Amino acid sequence: MYSVTIRDHVMIAHSLRGEVFGPAQRLHGATYVVDATFRRATLDDDGIVVDIGRAAEVLRGVVAQLGYRNLDDEAAFAGINTTTEVLARVVADRLADRARAGELGAGGRELDGLAVTLRESHVAWATYERPL
Amino acid sequence: MYSVTIRDHVMIAHSLRGEVFGPAQRLHGATYVVDATFRRATLDDDGIVVDIGRAAEVLRGVVAQLGYRNLDDEAAFAGINTTTEVLARVVADRLADRARAGELGAGGRELDGLAVTLRESHVAWATYERPL
Amino acid sequence: MYSVTIRDHVMIAHSLRGEVFGPAQRLHGATYVVDATFRRATLDDDGIVVDIGRAAEVLRGVVAQLGYRNLDDEAAFAGINTTTEVLARVVADRLADRARAGELGAGGRELDGLAVTLRESHVAWATYERPL
Amino acid sequence: MYSVTIRDHVMIAHSLRGEVFGPAQRLHGATYVVDATFRRATLDDDGIVVDIGRAAEVLRGVVAQLGYRNLDDEAAFAGINTTTEVLARVVADRLADRARAGELGAGGRELDGLAVTLRESHVAWATYERPL
Amino acid sequence: MYSVTIRDHVMIAHSLRGEVFGPAQRLHGATYVVDATFRRATLDDDGIVVDIGRAAEVLRGVVAQLGYRNLDDEAAFAGINTTTEVLARVVADRLADRARAGELGAGGRELDGLAVTLRESHVAWATYERPL
Amino acid sequence: MYSVTIRDHVMIAHSLRGEVFGPAQRLHGATYVVDATFRRATLDDDGIVVDIGRAAEVLRGVVAQLGYRNLDDEAAFAGINTTTEVLARVVADRLADRARAGELGAGGRELDGLAVTLRESHVAWATYERPL
Repeated sequence: MYSVTIRDHVMIAHSLRGEVFGPAQRLHGATYVVDATFRRATLDDDGIVVDIGRAAEVLRGVVAQLGYRNLDDEAAFAGINTTTEVLARVVADRLADRARAGELGAGGRELDGLAVTLRESHVAWATYERPL
Repeated sequence: MYSVTIRDHVMIAHSLRGEVFGPAQRLHGATYVVDATFRRATLDDDGIVVDIGRAAEVLRGVVAQLGYRNLDDEAAFAGINTTTEVLARVVADRLADRARAGELGAGGRELDGLAVTLRESHVAWATYERPL
Repeated sequence: MYSVTIRDHVMIAHSLRGEVFGPAQRLHGATYVVDATFRRATLDDDGIVVDIGRAAEVLRGVVAQLGYRNLDDEAAFAGINTTTEVLARVVADRLADRARAGELGAGGRELDGLAVTLRESHVAWATYERPL
Repeated sequence: MYSVTIRDHVMIAHSLRGEVFGPAQRLHGATYVVDATFRRATLDDDGIVVDIGRAAEVLRGVVAQLGYRNLDDEAAFAGINTTTEVLARVVADRLADRARAGELGAGGRELDGLAVTLRESHVAWATYERPL
Repeated sequence: MYSVTIRDHVMIAHSLRGEVFGPAQRLHGATYVVDATFRRATLDDDGIVVDIGRAAEVLRGVVAQLGYRNLDDEAAFAGINTTTEVLARVVADRLADRARAGELGAGGRELDGLAVTLRESHVAWATYERPL
Repeated sequence: MYSVTIRDHVMIAHSLRGEVFGPAQRLHGATYVVDATFRRATLDDDGIVVDIGRAAEVLRGVVAQLGYRNLDDEAAFAGINTTTEVLARVVADRLADRARAGELGAGGRELDGLAVTLRESHVAWATYERPL
């Protein structure tokens, strides 16, 4: 199994609902360093998993929809706790949608899976993995 | 599949028995940067894998039992080579015991697996993964 | 010249005023990984620059005053753009105040200088250095 | 499941064939930071996955065959696009060959799998995983 | 003193002349992870050292002139050993030229100094610092 | 001003004397990731600060004298607290001695200064800088 990973980042504000979050129930924010991993059993004729330039652009597009925003005000997250785990899944699912729509090129449709890691600090991160 | 990882560290002395270890048969020591990964198929109602604050405390408790000690003198390791691999399993097993005992909260009992990585330097690390 | 550095982090929300900031004029947030460096020409009788345990607690206290907050609502920052550069100075100045007040112990009063680096992502960071 | 990872690096020149590569079709080069992971279900009598000293030497041998070379001129890569993905597989396959030949010692024949990650920059890397 | 640092990277091929370079006398290549640091004694009215968006674009422009090239064939480097040290100075000098030409905005002319670090691997890097 | 830095590591056991050290008064250990920086105002005729291959060997020699040892038993450290700060100075001073003795080649005698950073974990490190 092959995989390729590209790194980007996004800066957001949000608050979390639930006593478990303690002071993070207040409005605060985060930089998420985003690692998007594209998995595939075989390489294409060029010897790659996916066009890494396109993949970087698609990832940029997905994180730009989140970035420099207060997620508490975004309709897409109404009633949803935007934890690191949830946001990792959101990024992965949106990448999967774009891959299936052909935005990663023909190779993007041959992907076997995706994993997205959001690093919220040097001591904590969350990952969501899914098939494609 | 979701996972959350938290990082801590521990500083220990020990020696290793066996010719394969060369100069590491002498009494020496290590800083292990410890990455504990908690895996779960679904999120709880708060949108998390596990209460990360509690998980950090539990990990702190587990590594504090090892830290600032000469492992050669610890009864728990009598007759055991405290290699990086072995210590990764010890940390994972102790985290699993605490998760089952409820120390991570109700969510801790829903975990599907654990992985522990001990980084002994910038060029070498060991991981132990197990189901829960 | 000796120095000791300790790392912590803080998660905040804020917005920035000025066209130069583009989309960062909107309410968003950041994780700052904070490196606080304590400089001193000579070591104390214990062979250290400063009690690293105390220094970590003092740094924790300083960043906790910022963390899990919307800096736009903090009286301390009224009329001030909380850029990464400005926040690096704020953290350094507050550390200096505490060092002079004796919170770092007797050694803290012997410090020659401080530097604080705030890493806002894997590709951008700011530093403020000052004498003590 | 246990694993041990060791890190090395290699510096090469090459060009890539195919429009998808854009400017990387020109002769250029890369430093690959190489992480070789050795997986095994159980530890040997010394409490290790593999002799890490030997593993480091074997990895050094494999990457030295690539290093400080223009891969476009190497017979082994005639007609092959030396993408990061392809080179990760080459390193993994050569490590597997050496493990089976006994170069990692008896324990090397007990390995269940290998993974090789080549990091071409701080924002992109590729991995190839295989059983042994 | 304040500073802001931004990170980019560049991939090049080259060879080095001189016995001291051993196998690096052969045509090979490198990824340089480039950290450009902009220093300034005071902040501007927006509370920044320099417009970080502009600075990133200017750095991108400078490294793009080097990237995906065989430096042995570049007229700018005829008769020059393109060591990591030399390339760090080249990047710093070209940034300084652009700062003085106004490409970093008015603030760029207020800079007191520049430092450029080129990381050629996880275990070696070179820095060149200069006033502006 | 130019500098070149190379990274190595060393694993030691020791204990620290003084109440300030708390549990670190017990016998324990550390991995120090060692960054040795060589500074020089001008480059030599090859375009380098120092022969990096030689520098790596000399650094290896210096750290090997410390590694896989209990520093409490070393005559060189009798009556000395082997704090991270002290060990950074020891490594720097031994590098300086070797540079002056010609072990770094002719260029090593042209060095203007040295800095040594010992990273004891992902959250703490110490540096010692000196002229040559």
